[in-house]
Amino acid sequence: MKLHILGCYAATPRTLSNPTAQILEIRNHLFLIDCGEGTQVELRRNKVKFSRINHIFISHLHGDHFFGLPGLISTFRLLGREKELHIYGPKGIKEAITLLFKLADSWTSYPLIFHELDSKEPLLLFQDAGVEVSTIPLAHRIYTNGFRFTSFYSERKLNIDAVREFGIGKEYFQKIKNGGSVTLEDGRVIPNQELTLDPPEPKHYAYCSDTAYYPDIIPLIRGVDVLYHEATFLESEAGLAKKTKHSTAGEAATIARDAEVGQLILGHFSTRYRNPDSFLEEAQRIFPNTLLAADGKLFEF
Amino acid sequence: MKLHILGCYAATPRTLSNPTAQILEIRNHLFLIDCGEGTQVELRRNKVKFSRINHIFISHLHGDHFFGLPGLISTFRLLGREKELHIYGPKGIKEAITLLFKLADSWTSYPLIFHELDSKEPLLLFQDAGVEVSTIPLAHRIYTNGFRFTSFYSERKLNIDAVREFGIGKEYFQKIKNGGSVTLEDGRVIPNQELTLDPPEPKHYAYCSDTAYYPDIIPLIRGVDVLYHEATFLESEAGLAKKTKHSTAGEAATIARDAEVGQLILGHFSTRYRNPDSFLEEAQRIFPNTLLAADGKLFEF
Repeated sequence: MKLHILGCYAATPRTLSNPTAQILEIRNHLFLIDCGEGTQVELRRNKVKFSRINHIFISHLHGDHFFGLPGLISTFRLLGREKELHIYGPKGIKEAITLLFKLADSWTSYPLIFHELDSKEPLLLFQDAGVEVSTIPLAHRIYTNGFRFTSFYSERKLNIDAVREFGIGKEYFQKIKNGGSVTLEDGRVIPNQELTLDPPEPKHYAYCSDTAYYPDIIPLIRGVDVLYHEATFLESEAGLAKKTKHSTAGEAATIARDAEVGQLILGHFSTRYRNPDSFLEEAQRIFPNTLLAADGKLFEF
Repeated sequence: MKLHILGCYAATPRTLSNPTAQILEIRNHLFLIDCGEGTQVELRRNKVKFSRINHIFISHLHGDHFFGLPGLISTFRLLGREKELHIYGPKGIKEAITLLFKLADSWTSYPLIFHELDSKEPLLLFQDAGVEVSTIPLAHRIYTNGFRFTSFYSERKLNIDAVREFGIGKEYFQKIKNGGSVTLEDGRVIPNQELTLDPPEPKHYAYCSDTAYYPDIIPLIRGVDVLYHEATFLESEAGLAKKTKHSTAGEAATIARDAEVGQLILGHFSTRYRNPDSFLEEAQRIFPNTLLAADGKLFEF
């Protein structure tokens, strides 16, 4: 998986800080997560191919996570898109986008498919042979979901040494990966376990923004490889965090520690802070394996 | 008047070209004209004081003129704005903005006053002691208005030499500017004409974007000091201009020539062209006093 941060700041776009948007590259997908104003420019700046984006996940309908979406949908049309585009987001997103396009008398040249959400329970949103995406209900001022992305391998891995030893040809490889045994020319049947290794462990990325400190999410994110958790404020502004239903760096780290995740990435910094270094210090005191997001930064895991 | 171009490109925001927005500084007003995605960042980049913007004029509801408005309205709230904000734009703009704010459960901290337009006749939108703004109905794919801004002086100008000659004190100056005569101590009455000069001529700026070639606007813009007219295409793409109801550089220049304006500024360039120099050449063959808009450029007139 590659996680490309396009914007990781709260509230308003500024010359040097973008509102929330990120691209998760997972197997052959480029998933866009949130779409603040200016996201399409950041996609260009970071040389992301527009045509590879087929699924957009919107956590909630605050402007800093959503106001870039109408423009991006228009741009897809101007680029001559024909492929389906799937939008997953809170109920109301379809009405908003549809109204804007009705007023502009501009319709898409491609199927635009909305998957509107209003459940407070976790839901499976997307599934194919190698990827699953589900919601993580969060606690913010308005209805908000985080998203959990899992990359899994259903095929067993070929044990190259064993296959060579038995002199098995390539034409059998797919059958073996699918779990089949092989009958050799001399009649011996080689069971699948002797020819394969267990598939790689699934990898999990959880995106949780925006949310108050909310331990209810722990069962949904336990043990994920990477957790992106919002940290709008420092503990020194804990009152403000509580009031606005955001988290502090310390709270994000507490969630990471209690959910035993592999790595924590902090983002959604309030622009009131000159630089986010204090977020790292505050979080690492609780959960050492913490990194800071930054606009344009690429994480690989 | 000062005209600050924040964006002068068509269709989509890109890393090096912004969609339409401009600030007209006229007497003590900062009028924002159109508001494509990213306008609030351009306002910051160009160091425009947000608190001085009280009137926003939206020509039409295509995204490249409008999708920056919801974010800007939100940012005004985050900045603690309390003053009224007036939005002038096509009917439907209130419903769109209101829906977005309803979905975000975010309301403004200040009175947001919509002036919705649907008239196909020119209308006076704003008037105070020194400025008038009226619409210029245009011919585009959807309902669109240009705007004509006039700075006028109702007071006559003091003739300093004459006032000194008669030994008239400062306490009479406002009365004289208002058109009054003065009775000297020796009983002589000096008529206003001898103490004043005609007020400065009004100054006019006309903004016409987006529009097909549309000579109907000529009576509404005749003799303006500066005309900003869209030129999305070159004559080589005249067919495309016609189809999309845009203008070519040559058509914009023809309008400028026929309306006998002082100066033409071209903008709204399609990003299909590497650079807009050819627009200047094409227009100057018809109307020599033509300039090109550029993002960040400041015109004073």
